[in-house]
Amino acid sequence: MDGYKTGMRYSKTLIPTVKEVPAEAEIPSHRLMIRAGYIRKLASGTYTYLPLGWRSLRKIMQIVREEMDAAGALEISMPILQPIELWQRTGREAAYGPTMCKFEDRHGRINALAPTAEEVVTAVAAQELKSYKQLPVNLYQINTKFRDEFRPRFGVLRSREFLMKDAYSFHADPQSLETEYRRMYDAYCRIFKRCGIPYVAVEAETGEMGGSGSHQFTVPCETGEDVIVYTADGSYAANIEKAAVDPLPRATPPADAPAPEPVHTPGVGSIEAVCAFLKTSPTEMIKTLIYSTTDGKVVACLLRGDHELNPEKLVQALGSGAELAAADVIERVSGASVGFAGPLGLSERVDRVLIDHAVAALPIAVTGANRTDYHTRNVVPGRDFALEGPSVTVTDIRNAVEGDTYGGQTLLFKRGIEVGQVFKLGTKYSKALDAAVLDEQGQPVTLLMGCYGIGINRILASAIEVGNDKDGCVLPPAIAPYEIEVIPLGDTGDVPATAERIYEALRARGADVLLDDRDARPGVKFKDADLIGIPLRVVVGEKSLKDGKVEVKRRTDAQPTLLPLDEAVEQVMAILAEMKTA
Amino acid sequence: MDGYKTGMRYSKTLIPTVKEVPAEAEIPSHRLMIRAGYIRKLASGTYTYLPLGWRSLRKIMQIVREEMDAAGALEISMPILQPIELWQRTGREAAYGPTMCKFEDRHGRINALAPTAEEVVTAVAAQELKSYKQLPVNLYQINTKFRDEFRPRFGVLRSREFLMKDAYSFHADPQSLETEYRRMYDAYCRIFKRCGIPYVAVEAETGEMGGSGSHQFTVPCETGEDVIVYTADGSYAANIEKAAVDPLPRATPPADAPAPEPVHTPGVGSIEAVCAFLKTSPTEMIKTLIYSTTDGKVVACLLRGDHELNPEKLVQALGSGAELAAADVIERVSGASVGFAGPLGLSERVDRVLIDHAVAALPIAVTGANRTDYHTRNVVPGRDFALEGPSVTVTDIRNAVEGDTYGGQTLLFKRGIEVGQVFKLGTKYSKALDAAVLDEQGQPVTLLMGCYGIGINRILASAIEVGNDKDGCVLPPAIAPYEIEVIPLGDTGDVPATAERIYEALRARGADVLLDDRDARPGVKFKDADLIGIPLRVVVGEKSLKDGKVEVKRRTDAQPTLLPLDEAVEQVMAILAEMKTA
Repeated sequence: MDGYKTGMRYSKTLIPTVKEVPAEAEIPSHRLMIRAGYIRKLASGTYTYLPLGWRSLRKIMQIVREEMDAAGALEISMPILQPIELWQRTGREAAYGPTMCKFEDRHGRINALAPTAEEVVTAVAAQELKSYKQLPVNLYQINTKFRDEFRPRFGVLRSREFLMKDAYSFHADPQSLETEYRRMYDAYCRIFKRCGIPYVAVEAETGEMGGSGSHQFTVPCETGEDVIVYTADGSYAANIEKAAVDPLPRATPPADAPAPEPVHTPGVGSIEAVCAFLKTSPTEMIKTLIYSTTDGKVVACLLRGDHELNPEKLVQALGSGAELAAADVIERVSGASVGFAGPLGLSERVDRVLIDHAVAALPIAVTGANRTDYHTRNVVPGRDFALEGPSVTVTDIRNAVEGDTYGGQTLLFKRGIEVGQVFKLGTKYSKALDAAVLDEQGQPVTLLMGCYGIGINRILASAIEVGNDKDGCVLPPAIAPYEIEVIPLGDTGDVPATAERIYEALRARGADVLLDDRDARPGVKFKDADLIGIPLRVVVGEKSLKDGKVEVKRRTDAQPTLLPLDEAVEQVMAILAEMKTA
Repeated sequence: MDGYKTGMRYSKTLIPTVKEVPAEAEIPSHRLMIRAGYIRKLASGTYTYLPLGWRSLRKIMQIVREEMDAAGALEISMPILQPIELWQRTGREAAYGPTMCKFEDRHGRINALAPTAEEVVTAVAAQELKSYKQLPVNLYQINTKFRDEFRPRFGVLRSREFLMKDAYSFHADPQSLETEYRRMYDAYCRIFKRCGIPYVAVEAETGEMGGSGSHQFTVPCETGEDVIVYTADGSYAANIEKAAVDPLPRATPPADAPAPEPVHTPGVGSIEAVCAFLKTSPTEMIKTLIYSTTDGKVVACLLRGDHELNPEKLVQALGSGAELAAADVIERVSGASVGFAGPLGLSERVDRVLIDHAVAALPIAVTGANRTDYHTRNVVPGRDFALEGPSVTVTDIRNAVEGDTYGGQTLLFKRGIEVGQVFKLGTKYSKALDAAVLDEQGQPVTLLMGCYGIGINRILASAIEVGNDKDGCVLPPAIAPYEIEVIPLGDTGDVPATAERIYEALRARGADVLLDDRDARPGVKFKDADLIGIPLRVVVGEKSLKDGKVEVKRRTDAQPTLLPLDEAVEQVMAILAEMKTA
C-alpha cells in the first residue's frame, strides 16, 4: 500500500494517548482523535496530524486516488496561491467574503489561499484545451484548502485548513457532462464503500457554485451539522437546502372574519415575544423578512412564524443572490422599527413579494403592522394582502420541517456529515474565464463543466463519529492506522519471540500490523489498542501459549477467541479478509 | 508503485507539448518543463503541475518516503498556517523579513504560511515528548512551503510555492544527534542515487537556521545558483558560503615605502573607477565596508579590492547577525561620503575592525581616505593601521576565489543546484520554545535537534538540467513520468493489436508504460517521446513486423535495435532493469 512499511513497533513510533481533552472538544470524533494521539491542535482551526492520524489519512487518499484513476481522471497539482483577479472575473471574491484567506505580497498583488480551484482549473483549461477531440477530460488534485471560518469547531470537521480532493471535468456537450457526472457519482459510492463508512447520496443545491444539478454524500450521524430529508420508501432524498415540500392546502378565508385590527405591542418584536404577549402561536403568525438582492432590488419574504427561510430556495426563486436588508432599508419600506414589518400595503413599497405556500394556507393570522410597537391581528391572506400580481409570487422558500410531505409522503429528517459533493456546473466558470474549444464544425463552443469534491479529513472524522464506543475508536480496517495489533503480554518464556514471529508472518502476508513491544502492563496495552481503534487484535500470553493457543479479538467482539498457534496467522488473515469485504 | 495505474494511453491523458516558451525561461529545465507539458505558470513564481510533471513528482516523493520510513523517521503533517507568535519567540520573524508570506485573519491574528517548520515541530515536541525514553524521534512531512521571493525565476527552482520534505529529529544527548545526522546523511545519498541524479555532498554553513554543522547536497550543473568549492583530491568540499581558504602569506612591509599620500579623486568612489583613475589594480586596493550588527555595534570590514565579503563568515566571526550600515552611519564613522571610507584611524571610530587575511598580506595598497573625494596611496598594513589590538581581528571573511588554496591544495569551483541540506541545530529552537525532557536521573534536559530538508521540485528540475539534449528531456527511469513508451506506427495490419499486446504485457510485468495511441504521424510521436524524455521506446511498425521484429531504443541511443517480436517484452524488461540499476 502506497509505499508504507506495512508494520511498526509501538516503541518506534509516537502515539501519545491522553486521558484529558479540552472542553472545546464537543463531539466524539474530536475528543477521540485527540485522546488516541491522531491529532494535536496548533491554533484555532489548525491541526497537526501525528503518525497515527496521518497514516489513516494517507490510506484514505490512496483509495480516493485509485478510484479517481480507475474512473479515468488525471491527477495534477495546482498552486495554493491564486491571483485574486481570477476570483474577481467570476464574481466569487465577493461571494466568499471574509471566509477567504488572502494576503498582499511584496509586489502588492493580492493572493488568495485556495478555498477551491474552479477559477484556476478553468484558466488552465482555457489555455490547454483547444478542440473537442481533447474532451472529455477530468483533472483532479488532492491538496490543502483554506477557509477563514468565523468559528472553527468540531475538530477537523470545521477547520481553517483541510485536505480536499477536487476534480473538474470539461465537456463540449451536455450528454458528455451527464455521463461523467454519473461516472463520478459511481466512483464516489465506491470510495465511501471502500473506506467503510455508511453514506447516503441526496439531491443538493448548487449554491454559490452555480450550475444545474448536484448530489451530496452524507454520513448519517446525530452530531452532524447537515440535515438530510427523505421519504420512508427511499423515493426521495435531499439535503435541507434543497428539500422540496408539498404546498400546504390553501385555506378558504373565513366568511365572517373580523377586519384587521392593530394592537399595541410596545417593545415586543420577536415572534416568541409577540406570541406570549398576544397569547397566540407561531403557527398563526406571519413573519415578514426584507431582503436586498445583489442587483439592488428590495424583496419582502413572508413566512409562517414557525418556519425558517431557506436561502438556497430564495436564490432559486429570485434568480440572484440576496441578503437580509440593512436596518435603514427595512425602516424605510416598513415605516417602522425593525421587527414590525408586515404584509399590508407592503407590495407597493418593495420590488417583489415572495410568499411561502404555508402563509397562503393560513386562514387568518397575526402580522407586523408596519408601525413601530404595533402588530395587526385578523389578517386574512388574499383578502388583506394580495396572493397574486405582477410582483407577487406564492412559492416554496422555506426549510422543510417535521410534518411536511413531498409527493404526498411524509418527510423524515436525519443529521449527518457531508463528506463529498458533485456538481454539474454548466458554463458559469468557462463563460467568465473564456474557456472554449472548437467543435466538429470548427465553431467555438463554451466548455461545460462538472466539479467533484471530497473532504479527506472528514472521512476519517465521520468514520470515528459513527464508529466509537466508551473505550475509543472503532475503525474499519481500510482506513484504520493499522489493521492488526499484536500484543505480547509480558516478556517471559516464548511470549516475545512468538509475538515477533506472528508480527513478521502477518506482515509478510501483506497485513499492516502494529506490534505493541512496550514494557507496559497488559491493561495499558489493551486500553490503548481499544482507544486507537485497531480492528483486530492478537494477544500472545504465557498461559494460553502453554495450551498452544493465542487469542484473537475483533475490536467489536465482546470476548476473544482462542486459536491454535500453528493456524493463527492464516486464520487471522482470513478474519481480516472477511472484515474488509463486510 | 504508490497506487498509480502503471500505464496510460496518450489519447486519455493531457500532454500539451508546445514549441514556444516565454522569454523568461532562461534555463533548460524551465524551458523543457513547459515545452514537454510538465508545468504551466499560473502567476509569478507559481506553477500548476500537469499530469506528466505531477507523475514525476509523485515518484520522487515515493522514493523519499520509502527511504525516510526505512531510516525510522515518522511521517506526520503539520499545518501550513502557523501562528506568528512562534516565530517571534525564536526571533526568526525578523530574520525572514519580507520573504515570509503572512496574513491577518478575521480575528486579527497573524498567520505565517509555512516557509519551514522548526518552530511548529518544536512546539509539538515540547508538548508530546516528556522522557528520554521516547527518544530519539524523527518526524517528517512532505508538503507545500512558501517564500515570497523578490524575483521568482528559473521556473520551479526559485518559486514562491514549492514542495519540501522536512524532517526534524530530537535527542537527549549529542551522540544520538550525531548518529541520526549520519543516518539522514546516508538516507539522502540513497534518495538522490535512487532518483538517478548526480550529486555532491559538501560542508555548508548553517546560516539563519543556527546550529553547529551542516551538509548541503548539490547537483552540479552550470546553470545552478549555488557554488561549491573543492580540492582535486576530494579531501575537501564545501559550499561557497562555508568554504575556508588558506591565509595568504603575510607581506614584509617594504622598508623604503613612502609615507601615505592623499590623492584627489573627485566623484570616483567605486573600486573600478579608482583603479582606472589611479592606474592601479583591484588586487592592490583595500575596500572598507561598514556593517551594523543586530546588537547595535558598528564594524569595519577590510577586504582586498577584488574580493567579496562572505556574509556567513562574517556572522561566524562576529557571533551575531550584521548588515551593511545605513549611509548616515558610514558618513559619521568615516567623516566622508559613502565610497571613501578607509582603514587609517578608523579603529577608534568603530566598535570592531575585521581584516581579511588577504589585506594583511598586502605590502602596500590604495585605500579610501575618510575624506570625501580623496583616496590614500602608499598605505602599508601594520605600519599605517594596526593588524592587532583589542578590537582588531585578522581572519577569513571573504569568498574563496580562483587561485586560493585550502590545506595547501588548489581550490576548484563548480556551480550547482541545491537539492537538500542537513543541519545539526543544537538547542536554538528547543531553548526558545522550552522543549525539554527528563533524563535518566529525572533531570530536565533541553532537547537537541537536527533538521533535514529536501526540495522535491528541485530534484525533477535538476534531473532535467543535467539530463537534456536538443530534442528534449533525458530522464532517469526512476523519476521519468513513464518508464517506457510504446509507439505504433499507423493503424494498418497487425500494428495496433501488436502494440496493444506489448503495452499490456509490459504493464503486467510492472513497467509503467505510455501507449501513444494517437492518430498522428510517426514524426510527431517520436518528437513528443524525445521531448518528454521517456527513457525507453518500443516502436511497432508494419515493415519490421513483417520480419517478426520490433524496434527498441533508449532515449540516449543514436539508433534503435531490432528485437524478435516473441522475445521483445522480456528483452525490453531486461533493458529497463539494467537502466534502473545503472
